[in-house]
Amino acid sequence: MRILGIDPGLRNSGWGVIDSVGSRLSHVANGVCVSQGETLAERLLSLYSQLSDVIARYGPDAAAVEQTFVNKDGAGTLKLGQARGIAMLVPAKAGLVVGEYAPNTVKKTVVGVGHADKQQVLHMVCLQLPGCDPAGPDAADALAIAICHSRHAGHVLREVAS
Amino acid sequence: MRILGIDPGLRNSGWGVIDSVGSRLSHVANGVCVSQGETLAERLLSLYSQLSDVIARYGPDAAAVEQTFVNKDGAGTLKLGQARGIAMLVPAKAGLVVGEYAPNTVKKTVVGVGHADKQQVLHMVCLQLPGCDPAGPDAADALAIAICHSRHAGHVLREVAS
Repeated sequence: MRILGIDPGLRNSGWGVIDSVGSRLSHVANGVCVSQGETLAERLLSLYSQLSDVIARYGPDAAAVEQTFVNKDGAGTLKLGQARGIAMLVPAKAGLVVGEYAPNTVKKTVVGVGHADKQQVLHMVCLQLPGCDPAGPDAADALAIAICHSRHAGHVLREVAS
Repeated sequence: MRILGIDPGLRNSGWGVIDSVGSRLSHVANGVCVSQGETLAERLLSLYSQLSDVIARYGPDAAAVEQTFVNKDGAGTLKLGQARGIAMLVPAKAGLVVGEYAPNTVKKTVVGVGHADKQQVLHMVCLQLPGCDPAGPDAADALAIAICHSRHAGHVLREVAS
């Protein structure tokens, strides 16, 4: 199973693609979509186009998006929500089931604790995906989300197959 | 100029299409997109498909989306933000410039005061668009957003044309 993980943001959205065969994982590709444009609509369209290209190029079988952390900064939450809407839409439009995982679940699955810092996440991602070289912290987070989905969704997929 | 107004929501998104010729406005169509699906990704895809159909059917020249009211309910703001991302994307993808107006600006333009209630908005929308019969309060709000855009964007368009 090929899995696309997405860490959405209005300016920078990380993405990572991994292959999961049984319990073996391997790195396929990763990167960061940098949204272009002056208006909100243009930036959302830019994100849409870039994520669509990633799906067309790597043909994932499933996708997972990080659940956005809701804080007291309403304007920030709204911006992130708009980017997250696009990150959910693009794989759904390609016919993929889209998993959602809270940041703490991702960290707990990949690092073993729910409050790991970015450096620990990066370290464990590289350990579990030998040879990967994340394009930045957002790309490393996206690979972590894909790893998380492979651990959780694999169970579901085996149940469906039996 | 044909204008599409959108009042975004995760469950119900109102839309309204009007024609604006000089200072004369006329009603074309209005309705409500009711998002179908059990998961967030499915509901966003459903909203995307329905809004895309509206644009394909009525061929607007411009679009306007209400600026979302940010409140202390972070989870609610996030949900609305995700729907709003789709409402901004769909017209941008069709090549339309997408205007954004705060709720108070819409009400001030259509009713004359910034704190009008829904009944007043409905009344003034019907007065300015004879023969329209809004499919609900969300559709009436969407028509009000389209009217607002015709009043504000018309000025800009005339400047560009001269």
